[in-house]
Amino acid sequence: MWIQKEFHLAAKPRGFHLITNEVSQAVQDIERIECGLFNLFIKHTSASLTINENADATVRADFESHFNKFVPERAPYYRHDYEGDDDMPAYLKSSILGASINIPISQGRLNLGIWQGIYLCEHRNHGGSRTVVATISGAVYD
Amino acid sequence: MWIQKEFHLAAKPRGFHLITNEVSQAVQDIERIECGLFNLFIKHTSASLTINENADATVRADFESHFNKFVPERAPYYRHDYEGDDDMPAYLKSSILGASINIPISQGRLNLGIWQGIYLCEHRNHGGSRTVVATISGAVYD
Amino acid sequence: MWIQKEFHLAAKPRGFHLITNEVSQAVQDIERIECGLFNLFIKHTSASLTINENADATVRADFESHFNKFVPERAPYYRHDYEGDDDMPAYLKSSILGASINIPISQGRLNLGIWQGIYLCEHRNHGGSRTVVATISGAVYD
Repeated sequence: MWIQKEFHLAAKPRGFHLITNEVSQAVQDIERIECGLFNLFIKHTSASLTINENADATVRADFESHFNKFVPERAPYYRHDYEGDDDMPAYLKSSILGASINIPISQGRLNLGIWQGIYLCEHRNHGGSRTVVATISGAVYD
Repeated sequence: MWIQKEFHLAAKPRGFHLITNEVSQAVQDIERIECGLFNLFIKHTSASLTINENADATVRADFESHFNKFVPERAPYYRHDYEGDDDMPAYLKSSILGASINIPISQGRLNLGIWQGIYLCEHRNHGGSRTVVATISGAVYD
Repeated sequence: MWIQKEFHLAAKPRGFHLITNEVSQAVQDIERIECGLFNLFIKHTSASLTINENADATVRADFESHFNKFVPERAPYYRHDYEGDDDMPAYLKSSILGASINIPISQGRLNLGIWQGIYLCEHRNHGGSRTVVATISGAVYD
């Protein structure tokens, strides 16, 4: 059983954003799968997806602080420096964090740990709406 | 063909641990798959999974050294600093390394390269037992 | 429907290389899948795969600069230092970037964003030919 849906995440400011609800509401077919996998893929190179803590916004703020320090803007060795100071660091952050996530589906639900949520990692100052593809596969309920 | 198994990895000290055998023994159904994929997902935000060198323990020790230096404890900009010095760095390390891994299954075996093994990356000082979900899918032998 | 193909990427110098065409030509069965997933897995610990910008070579050059600075050679704390200065950093870079990528297949094509391509990330000075496994799964066209 394969279901695929391409949809858009609402534009968000630069930073790390919890999108578990936004994604779940877009992809209600998950309920039909007894045992399977959920893949979410982002069709951009300057934003990324990750799974992390879903309860305290200070965690997401610290993600932005860490990545800004360890993937700095205006590094003297950047040759790709003509599309904005946020551009080259965005590509690097995206590859470090990843363009897709996989979550097991069990009994019609995303089998996340109690503290896990899905983050949209927006690395551009004005990234705009982001396109993602959800692919659901597995064994359906009889 | 879909098989899913949720199980627990034994508690381990902070650091990088080779768990290929522990995982293979828990998920013997891999033998039934002629061609498919193995996904292992960890249901935690302060530990992670990766694939890396399976022969020399000094590699795993250097992983811990690298990640402690480049994802430091007690960074002055951390706002999430009330659950232990190892807490916020653990979230960051987990997202950098990832919450799941995928390995192809070929002729009933994990199709890993000769030097590849599965690591549990334990980022907390006392993380305890860690829950993982293995999802196996593919074409079975006739 | 499951298709799997193990093949070799031509040897490349240390650095980040666009391999979307090399991969697509090796795995033409993607055309048969109406809706599914493409997984590419690299069977090495000192090279990795990622998805990133496919248009400007300066981006790939800056990836190498960034990773060389933030995963340095000859760090004083490395214990695994007897297989070349490029060896231990290669393991770390590989786990940070990842051993596999997943791309949705839609209407017989890799559903990549307009600016997305597949990178082989070669972290060794003389890595040689690299073995990868492509696993394609999904619903076929009637």
